Amino acid sequence: MLHLDKLKTLLGTVSDLRGAASLLSWDQQTYMPSGSSFARAEQLATLEKLAHAQFTSMEIGEHLEGAIGEIKSLAYDSNAASLVRFVRREYDRAQKIPPSLIAEIARQTSLGMEVWVKARKTSNFRSFQSSLQRIIELQRELADCLGFENKRYDALLDQYEPGMTTSTLNKLFSDLKSGLLPLVEGLSQKINAVDDKVLHQYFPAEKQLEFGLKMAELIGYDLSRGRQDQSVHPFCTSFSINDVRITTRLDEEFLSSALFGTLHECGHALYEQGINIELERTLLGGGTSLGIHESQSRLWENLVGRSREFWKFAYPILKTFFHDSLDKCSLESFYRSINRVQPSLIRVEADEVTYNLHIMLRYELEVDLLEGNLQIKDLPDAWNSKMNRYLGVIPSDDAVGVLQDVHWSHGLIGYFPTYALGNLVSVQFYQQAQKAVPTIVAEIEEGKFSSLLAWLREHVHQHGRKFMPEELVKKETGEFISAEPFVQYLKAKYSEIYF
Amino acid sequence: MLHLDKLKTLLGTVSDLRGAASLLSWDQQTYMPSGSSFARAEQLATLEKLAHAQFTSMEIGEHLEGAIGEIKSLAYDSNAASLVRFVRREYDRAQKIPPSLIAEIARQTSLGMEVWVKARKTSNFRSFQSSLQRIIELQRELADCLGFENKRYDALLDQYEPGMTTSTLNKLFSDLKSGLLPLVEGLSQKINAVDDKVLHQYFPAEKQLEFGLKMAELIGYDLSRGRQDQSVHPFCTSFSINDVRITTRLDEEFLSSALFGTLHECGHALYEQGINIELERTLLGGGTSLGIHESQSRLWENLVGRSREFWKFAYPILKTFFHDSLDKCSLESFYRSINRVQPSLIRVEADEVTYNLHIMLRYELEVDLLEGNLQIKDLPDAWNSKMNRYLGVIPSDDAVGVLQDVHWSHGLIGYFPTYALGNLVSVQFYQQAQKAVPTIVAEIEEGKFSSLLAWLREHVHQHGRKFMPEELVKKETGEFISAEPFVQYLKAKYSEIYF
Repeated sequence: MLHLDKLKTLLGTVSDLRGAASLLSWDQQTYMPSGSSFARAEQLATLEKLAHAQFTSMEIGEHLEGAIGEIKSLAYDSNAASLVRFVRREYDRAQKIPPSLIAEIARQTSLGMEVWVKARKTSNFRSFQSSLQRIIELQRELADCLGFENKRYDALLDQYEPGMTTSTLNKLFSDLKSGLLPLVEGLSQKINAVDDKVLHQYFPAEKQLEFGLKMAELIGYDLSRGRQDQSVHPFCTSFSINDVRITTRLDEEFLSSALFGTLHECGHALYEQGINIELERTLLGGGTSLGIHESQSRLWENLVGRSREFWKFAYPILKTFFHDSLDKCSLESFYRSINRVQPSLIRVEADEVTYNLHIMLRYELEVDLLEGNLQIKDLPDAWNSKMNRYLGVIPSDDAVGVLQDVHWSHGLIGYFPTYALGNLVSVQFYQQAQKAVPTIVAEIEEGKFSSLLAWLREHVHQHGRKFMPEELVKKETGEFISAEPFVQYLKAKYSEIYF
Repeated sequence: MLHLDKLKTLLGTVSDLRGAASLLSWDQQTYMPSGSSFARAEQLATLEKLAHAQFTSMEIGEHLEGAIGEIKSLAYDSNAASLVRFVRREYDRAQKIPPSLIAEIARQTSLGMEVWVKARKTSNFRSFQSSLQRIIELQRELADCLGFENKRYDALLDQYEPGMTTSTLNKLFSDLKSGLLPLVEGLSQKINAVDDKVLHQYFPAEKQLEFGLKMAELIGYDLSRGRQDQSVHPFCTSFSINDVRITTRLDEEFLSSALFGTLHECGHALYEQGINIELERTLLGGGTSLGIHESQSRLWENLVGRSREFWKFAYPILKTFFHDSLDKCSLESFYRSINRVQPSLIRVEADEVTYNLHIMLRYELEVDLLEGNLQIKDLPDAWNSKMNRYLGVIPSDDAVGVLQDVHWSHGLIGYFPTYALGNLVSVQFYQQAQKAVPTIVAEIEEGKFSSLLAWLREHVHQHGRKFMPEELVKKETGEFISAEPFVQYLKAKYSEIYF
């Protein structure tokens, strides 16, 4: 397989450049001194540009053609056939984007993030406005380069969720709405049945970090191939299958922020650490889509991390960390606290029931911005008005409103819907795992996570990007992505808590 | 200046790749999980290879030719003329090295460092032997590619100290020896006149870090363009003029290690932070040689940091950090402690008088290894025997002997002599600064460092790589590099302390 081998060597270089860029980006968000943002933007732009140039080179095109011939007799799900399939799709797409656009996007979003950090600190949307304007313009330009059949938004969405379209999304979101609305309405009558005062006490940062990392390790996060740091917005990133890092945001006045944030990022990290090492440096060595990625983070954060079974095991340990604050709080009361439903301002801290409303809000704003139906200067008003309509709350300032998320400053338009997809798929995978290994929940009560992790490793993680997202869901669960299991899960869980 | 502009754009890419590689290397030594060393080695190899390929491209060659014509009417010391001069020299040299050799050196030394860290931890030279063997072979190959007139060693030395040769070095080292030997002999009669017991108490790591960073800031280290982290071997690195970082090694049982280590790395950092920002991304935005770099670190560590004047100001502050340990120690007694002369095992903690003996030892071993007069397997014995001869001490194990320094694992052969050169030049610059601004020492007594820093900024830092090392020394002091001022400085200082 001469062409295939050559192709893999060339992809190794692309993979190394991308890994290096990810490290520069991680550093920018964790340890980089503020004064060096300009130089870092240039460095990131250079790496992105070189990676793009290498990936779209004639040489890759030639060896890709050759490799297509070579792998004809191989099984569809072999590493080699999957690699060629993936690269062919990505290569065709990458060919459409001029290197100068890539570099400009990298430069503007690197600077944009710095501007956003400052704007958020001073709650000053105006200071971010012109950066965001430029970022949206570049995204529009990008969508036009990529091409689309129906909506410009489809071109951007496809980058994060290959194969997904606005029309499929509209259908799923519509199902979700009609399932959720009666539930939200019912719960709103009972809003005071649960309070979470116990979570709003003083929890020292050091101890929060320590407990979170302990849980992450118990669940299966391998610290010889990962680490935890602090950042403004929590994230997971990987520079290789053996270097997968998470970051945590700490709030000493609220326990849930770091706790569930860590479980969430740990879910992402388990996915990346679980990829077959044979896929390293081939471009298949990552999660297949953001939606599937999010299914893993939400599975550990919510389906496991907010379950009664998990806390039967973990609550006594948590109490040893925060004895004074939790002494008088029973397991049952703690379980209800962490599952309190309360329409709120901040997406990352939203409960399972209202979370998807945050996503729909952003999705609608993004589509409007991209189609030119909404001006950047009107964005804070549009945000606040939708917040009021969907969640019944109005941000006191832009820092907790339109400036709360890092994504747009990064140029990530078309990204938010994947969070909702992740919620749906997380339930589909978890139910499938329990069908296959009925003892999973009983094991969790005893602090044993290896059966669940093993199922996920075998059916999801190891494959990396070998299969398209919906293809993977169909292959491993027998169903397409659907809102129904998620809605049923919420109804059962929250009826029990609230009624 | 069409060619010059084009050239600068291309050099910007090279500069970005090198900056990225430096960050990957910094991360490897500070935060990287141990399991990812293989992937990191590949990434570093790729970045080095691409940087080399970009720098040696035909395109750079063509625009360099064009630029040589364009800058003819410009002043010798203009940024543009200096850049062309520098690039011409570097380009000619880089042309001689095959990209495959660069990549192989990067890969082997990245792996080599991991092996060294483990070997040092277990004090097991044998486990590092085959890595070092391969590293030396590659350095020999490199020297042969670069070419040399006299000694193979000259080719390697010239990489770190452009223009320096083994024969010049032998002359300087000979002067140094004949100046030092009578001093060392005299001091050895008085070895008990000074003790440093006060430094060997318990000093909490946190406080050591805090005090070191406070001093670094007072001296002029700009933390909005820098930061401090911990590592096995302390170092300074920069990813741009606005991102210059230092690392510190902590020893809770010995105050000097972190204290003078921090002042030392801070001296390097001040140099890098002081370079004219116009030189950013041109390849001139770094120190002109390791010797000149070391002159800056040693100036702050020793000429300032171990002076009586500095501690008149700093000792009261140090006492507020470590009141219990230092309460009964007078300023004079502390001053003598930090200047105790004692032949010892560890170079980085050696006193000013014996330090250069450590360098000569390594220099001789390196020349012998390179010329094939010494086998790798015999290195620990050769090390120990020279240690005994020069310093009268024998390492109890290889961890504190032949494995103590990171340099060889990095493939840095020809690097050590620059430490001795730095000692000599530090005195030449400091004396020149005092001639120009006679109040410098009096200001230091009051904790004011701005006059000294301003002189260094104007006469050394700002120039970056515009001038060759000895050219810079001649230009700013009127003298060539010489051992005499250094020897006179030591004689005066240590006669006063010991006799």
